[in-house]
This record gives sequence, C-alpha cells and structure tokens, in this order.
Amino acid sequence: MINRLCIIGVGLIGGSLARALRKADAVNEIVGCNRNEDSLRRAAEIGVIDRYSLDMAQAVRGADMIVIAVPVGSMDEVFRAIVPVLDSNAVITDVGSTKGSVVEAARSACGHVPTNFVPGHPIAGTERSGVEASFAELYQRRRVILTPVRETNPQAVEKVRAMWEIAGAEVEAMEVHHHDEILAATSHLPHILAFGLVDSLARMEDKREIFRYAAGGFRDFTRIASSDPQMWTDICLANRAALLQVLGHYAEDLAGITQAIDKGDGEHLRKVFERAKAARDRFCETNN
Amino acid sequence: MINRLCIIGVGLIGGSLARALRKADAVNEIVGCNRNEDSLRRAAEIGVIDRYSLDMAQAVRGADMIVIAVPVGSMDEVFRAIVPVLDSNAVITDVGSTKGSVVEAARSACGHVPTNFVPGHPIAGTERSGVEASFAELYQRRRVILTPVRETNPQAVEKVRAMWEIAGAEVEAMEVHHHDEILAATSHLPHILAFGLVDSLARMEDKREIFRYAAGGFRDFTRIASSDPQMWTDICLANRAALLQVLGHYAEDLAGITQAIDKGDGEHLRKVFERAKAARDRFCETNN
Repeated sequence: MINRLCIIGVGLIGGSLARALRKADAVNEIVGCNRNEDSLRRAAEIGVIDRYSLDMAQAVRGADMIVIAVPVGSMDEVFRAIVPVLDSNAVITDVGSTKGSVVEAARSACGHVPTNFVPGHPIAGTERSGVEASFAELYQRRRVILTPVRETNPQAVEKVRAMWEIAGAEVEAMEVHHHDEILAATSHLPHILAFGLVDSLARMEDKREIFRYAAGGFRDFTRIASSDPQMWTDICLANRAALLQVLGHYAEDLAGITQAIDKGDGEHLRKVFERAKAARDRFCETNN
Repeated sequence: MINRLCIIGVGLIGGSLARALRKADAVNEIVGCNRNEDSLRRAAEIGVIDRYSLDMAQAVRGADMIVIAVPVGSMDEVFRAIVPVLDSNAVITDVGSTKGSVVEAARSACGHVPTNFVPGHPIAGTERSGVEASFAELYQRRRVILTPVRETNPQAVEKVRAMWEIAGAEVEAMEVHHHDEILAATSHLPHILAFGLVDSLARMEDKREIFRYAAGGFRDFTRIASSDPQMWTDICLANRAALLQVLGHYAEDLAGITQAIDKGDGEHLRKVFERAKAARDRFCETNN
C-alpha cells in the first residue's frame, strides 16, 4: 500500500499508473506535479490525481513513493529539485526509455546515485500523449524493466516491483547498459525510421498525392511517427551510443538491399525478406 | 455483369475480388487457375471459384474478363500463354503493384500492348497471403488505380472500372510512371524498411532477448514484414528505378538524423520529428 504517491509529469504514462493504482485501491493519495497548470487541473478534474503543486519540492513533501515521468532530458532538473527535500525512506523511480542517461542524471544531481532510487522502464505506451490519453489498463500484461545499480537498496526495488505488479505488469530486472542496447534496437530505431520516412515523404514535391494513395500498411508502419517529438529528441540524445551502433548496422543492411535492387539480385532480396518474415511471424506467435 | 470471370492466381487479392463479385451477384461463373492444384482445390471447396484448370490457355477459354493476380515477376509468362487464345472482346486486367513492368511484360509477350488490357492496382491487402485469407470486403472504400496506356481501348477501361466499383472500390486513373513513383514512396519503401529492420535485428547475437522486449509499436511497425517474400522480391526488381530514387533520398535523410544524434543536435532531431508528426497526424485526419 502506498500512502502518498507523487507523480512528476502527469501524462499518458504517469496518468495511467495513477489510474491503475487507484483502481486497485493501492494508494491513499495521489499528488501531481507538471510544468503546465492546465494539464494538472484537468488531471484533478478527471480524478487521476487528488491535488497538485507546480513546485516539485512541495509536491514530493511527505510522499513515500515518487514516480518521475518526464522526458529523459528533464530528469537532471527533477533530481536536483526533489532529492534534498525527500523523506529518508521515500522511494523514487522513473519511467524513462533510456536508463544510462537517467542514472547519470541522478549521479550528477546528487553526487551519487540515491540508494532509494530505482531506475525503471515500462515497455508500454501508445502514440498519444497527455493525461487525457491515459487509462488504467495500459500496463496489463506489459513488461516493466527495472535496472537497479550497485548502490540501489533492494527493499526499494521490491517496493517498486510491487507497485508495477499491482498495475498489472510483469516486472524484470536488467543491467543498465543491456537495457539501453535492447531498447535502441526494438524501440528507438523503429521510431527513428518511422519519423524519418514520414518526413522524407512529406518533403517530396507531390506530397499531397503521396499521402492520398497510402494504405493500411502505411498507417500501421507510421503510427509511431505520431509520437511526441520532444520526448523522442530526448531519447535519441540520451541513448546516443547504443543508437549509433544499431543505426550503423541498419544503414549497412539497407545499403546491401539497395545494391541488390540496383544489380537485380533477387536472390539477396528474397533471403532478406524470408529471414525477416520468419522472425516476425515467430515474434507474433510467441507474443500472442 | 460478367459472364465468365477467369482469375489467374487465386490468392488473397484474386480470391477477395471473386468473393466480392459473387456476393454482389455480378458474375455467372468463376474459373480459377494457379500453379498449385492444392490451393485451387481449396478455393473451389470454399466456393471462391466454380471450377479450375492448371492450364492457363484452357482456363481463359470463353472468359469475358480475365484478372491476372500473380506476382509481377510472372506476368510475362501469363501474357504469353493467354493472349493467343483469348476471345477478341475479352478484357484483361491485372493487380500488380508495379505498372511499368507489367506493361513492358505485355508488350514483350505480344509485340504490342493488347488494346483490351487495362493495367490496374488495387491499393488494398493484408500481410497474409493465400485464398484462405481472402474476404469479400477487402476492397470496400479502397482505391484502385488504373493506368491505361495510349493503346488501351476506353471501353475495356470502363468494364474494369465497373467491376472494381461493384467490389466496393473507388477507381482512379493515373499515368504508369506516376503510379510507380507514388507507390515506391508509400508502399514499396516502407516494406523494404520493415523487412530490413526485422532482418537486422534477427541477425543480432541476442536476438531472442531483443524480440522478447519488443512492444506494440514494434508489432505495428513490422506487420508488413510478414508479407510474401517472393512477391516483394518481384516488386523490388520490377520498380527498380523509382525505388532507387526514394531509397537514395531516405538514406540521405537517415544519415542526417544519424549525424544529428552523433553531434547532439537536438534542434535537427526535433524539427524532423515535428514535421513527421504533423504530416502523419494530417494523414490520419484525412483518411478517417
């Protein structure tokens, strides 16, 4: 049971967690904090939070669980504001899509990684943003990855794990760098490719016509290009090393495909497409 | 009203057209032709076709409408087999995703483009293949592009247009090369990117783990990588020039994004992502 939960950044992710914990009757009071008062007022109106403050230090006062759900580029600022005023037994976690950068932000803000800070990442979301897009079922059967570091207090890890399990998620632990490599491949790279494709097409001369003849495959392929630009800018900058590596591999593979098309090498193309289809079909079988 | 419809290649596309026309009571008899007898037998069992032949010349005999729904790499062979035996007033159309190559195949097989041949392309489909994936509603409110050439008989165009409209589609005409450029951008390029991504990831060392942590965005983004590898090999080879052009633009744009990540240029990334989100959101608004 959480007595006072403070959510810093009440959007899709933070708002959905609040809804899930409220629905499970696992929290007494939820305090929200955002830069934008309008969205906080709205969050209170629709019952996602009980009250709010625009001041982070005030918002976290007396909270036993603090969830930081801001874009990863703003983590540093949050740690600086809240760590000095926290209760000694308050647990902090975050939901950032990159973990190395968040651990670094905590270390640089506090001089060390706070022992009660548990870096975390729910592998869930939609292309929509904002508290009005939030819903209690977002984390049902989704994975949440926690990446505790050497300094992390195991009891804090257990509290964060219990919170996510109440929200319906399956919780796993992983090493920070490993998390960042895996997510670069399965999430960050696809987002970049989709954003890149839509922007490429949008800058073509006959763009109105181009989008006119796009079909269902295009709609699905580009869904993630409707995601929040600032959040994804932050992620790209925060996961630079892992992303440059997968982008390098991908660019090479794409050059190979391009060369095969240029030379009429159907054998190469068929092999790539067959391997991809087999892997993708397997992925769907094991994830149903 | 079509008296005898012959479908060469009774899969998702051909089978769905047969079902739609049957449902609308717009055809007397449907004859199927495939390389594979098993799938023809199955098509007859489930009532998609009335009868079949493995011999193309025999299958088209007496048909007043012939729909060629084979991969674009096999069009040449089909034209060679059927054109010499057709009734003089029989209308031929195809469903290939590239139109320049199909017109060339017709020209090379017959010495000229048959006047009753209407090149066509329904912008519809799913990632599944085969007659058992077919359904009568596939073309409802979908676009079908016809690309008649100088030689094409306008009456043949009207018959093909009427057929697709009965199946629920919105029919438009377009110049062959223009079609191929537009489809390279909106369909062929996304398929290549998705196939390429899944193959890239599948060849990484920790691939099992990688797919384990993939989420809904990944599932949608890669849906088209479950498409038929042979069909897409044919399309890549058949639309070489237009594809190399869009691949070139895309590779340049991706290199720009990669460089921005490398240099920490958040301004460049945010601009790309914002333009993409705006274009994608507009696409969804106008296509709902």
